[in-house]
Amino acid sequence: MLNHSSQPDVLISEVGPRDGLQSVKATMSTADKFKWIDALVAAGVREIEVASFVPARLLPQMADAAEVVKYATRHPNVTVMALVPNLRGAQAALAAGAHKLTMPVSASRAHSLANVRKTPEDMVEEVRAIARLRDELAPAVKLEAGISTAFGCTLQGEVAEDDVIRLATLCVQAGANESGLSDTVGYANPAQVRRLFRRLRQELGEHAGAAHMHNTRGLGLANCLAAWDEGVRTFDSSLGGLGGCPYAPGASGNVVTEDLVFMFEAMGVRTGIDLAKIVAAREPLAVGLPGEALYGMTPDAGLPKGFAQQP
Amino acid sequence: MLNHSSQPDVLISEVGPRDGLQSVKATMSTADKFKWIDALVAAGVREIEVASFVPARLLPQMADAAEVVKYATRHPNVTVMALVPNLRGAQAALAAGAHKLTMPVSASRAHSLANVRKTPEDMVEEVRAIARLRDELAPAVKLEAGISTAFGCTLQGEVAEDDVIRLATLCVQAGANESGLSDTVGYANPAQVRRLFRRLRQELGEHAGAAHMHNTRGLGLANCLAAWDEGVRTFDSSLGGLGGCPYAPGASGNVVTEDLVFMFEAMGVRTGIDLAKIVAAREPLAVGLPGEALYGMTPDAGLPKGFAQQP
Repeated sequence: MLNHSSQPDVLISEVGPRDGLQSVKATMSTADKFKWIDALVAAGVREIEVASFVPARLLPQMADAAEVVKYATRHPNVTVMALVPNLRGAQAALAAGAHKLTMPVSASRAHSLANVRKTPEDMVEEVRAIARLRDELAPAVKLEAGISTAFGCTLQGEVAEDDVIRLATLCVQAGANESGLSDTVGYANPAQVRRLFRRLRQELGEHAGAAHMHNTRGLGLANCLAAWDEGVRTFDSSLGGLGGCPYAPGASGNVVTEDLVFMFEAMGVRTGIDLAKIVAAREPLAVGLPGEALYGMTPDAGLPKGFAQQP
Repeated sequence: MLNHSSQPDVLISEVGPRDGLQSVKATMSTADKFKWIDALVAAGVREIEVASFVPARLLPQMADAAEVVKYATRHPNVTVMALVPNLRGAQAALAAGAHKLTMPVSASRAHSLANVRKTPEDMVEEVRAIARLRDELAPAVKLEAGISTAFGCTLQGEVAEDDVIRLATLCVQAGANESGLSDTVGYANPAQVRRLFRRLRQELGEHAGAAHMHNTRGLGLANCLAAWDEGVRTFDSSLGGLGGCPYAPGASGNVVTEDLVFMFEAMGVRTGIDLAKIVAAREPLAVGLPGEALYGMTPDAGLPKGFAQQP
């Protein structure tokens, strides 16, 4: 049992079972997903993005999305998130009992058109439709808009900061509970992270959402630190750095959960996650995805001598 | 030729030819060291730690230290640094024409005794002797004390912050031009980096020196960002992350120069180093050390689309 007497200072939102698993070629079995999720929960993870509700012919790795959501919701005190690209996905996710929906809305017009054949404005209308459905069927369910390519885009290059903030605001106005910012392609730098999250928080207040950073150019943790400095308290990351846009060995995509938790805990910022147990949660991941490269430096280096996690 | 019309904002001090080369098993030939140093200079690097003046029987990789220092000093506008563990090393480095000496002084008593069989206080006396020699022979030469294990030690665990600041101050009082702080074993976290460099700068003002960070647990760039926030403007790093205390693949020791330069340049902080050319400087390193693993994510991922370095 976790000690809930002291509230953690940050929320680490584990995205591996969705973002990670849909980025690799192999498909993890449903039973192995359950074991991995159990290990994450045992380590103290309080929010997990467990599935993506997309057609199975597009992403066979996510064919068991409903089953995985249903299983994960058995754990008390865990927010079970699902990615939904559209209204149909949202219907399925709500039917399965997801606690929170996240919708990717790209700030890069080029990326949005190439990826979902919709403009960012069309996607805002999709957010509105999903928010309406949520209000009808399950008003307690939270809806998050993840503004992707918020720090730049491999197709269009620079993405105007005004466009990002405008889109994030439109999503909240359309009914999203929060808009977060995603560095989808690993272009962000700490100065930009500070500027954008400062503006986001000024515009949206409590509706400003998570930082979803990538480690593509090694700046993942520095960017999380920059976001923390601006008051961000929810961070997406992935166990073993699974997912994102990996390039060469060592160049993982998503920020590595283990290293992020170590950084915060070493700083005295409580994550609610047990470092030894989160490293142990790599075991069911490795078993469920044999041969897949796992990143992370803290698991290899171990904890500093005399390092004691705060209760 | 570099454009010197605008002064860079930070000094990246490349430690690879010393810290990197003395940490690997193979010995790079003198001719290959020359080519690598040439490539670093061509990229705009303005300070290079090129050698360590220790007995060749202990570190055969550094047997050509005097020759390498002499060669490097041919490059105008480059500060040629050498590590000296003691007075004898300082004599040899000064005779070879080094512009700057750096002396490792460990804040951990256990590490100091195990490593050089001297207490930290004995090492301060060594600093004093070297400073005196420098005053006599080459008063223009700068002397830096690098306070090692400043953020923790694998032998003694925690290192008291008071001990670190006291030792750094004693070194400056003994004649060092500056005292910098080294995270020798990769234990530092950004909150600690901020606290210690804030105190160091309060105590020592312009005599507060460089941040020498390691990436052992993935926090290297986050710690450099934290030091930058506190006003530190000199950063040690190593091309390809060579050296330090590498553990597993991907877990490099020293902060990777290429990624550090990318972080600063992306933030609009000018390093004076050309990103394409610093990545190109990996080639002579790889040729001179065949089979050695080189780290760094920016070289693999490439620069963001439309990324333009400020002049």
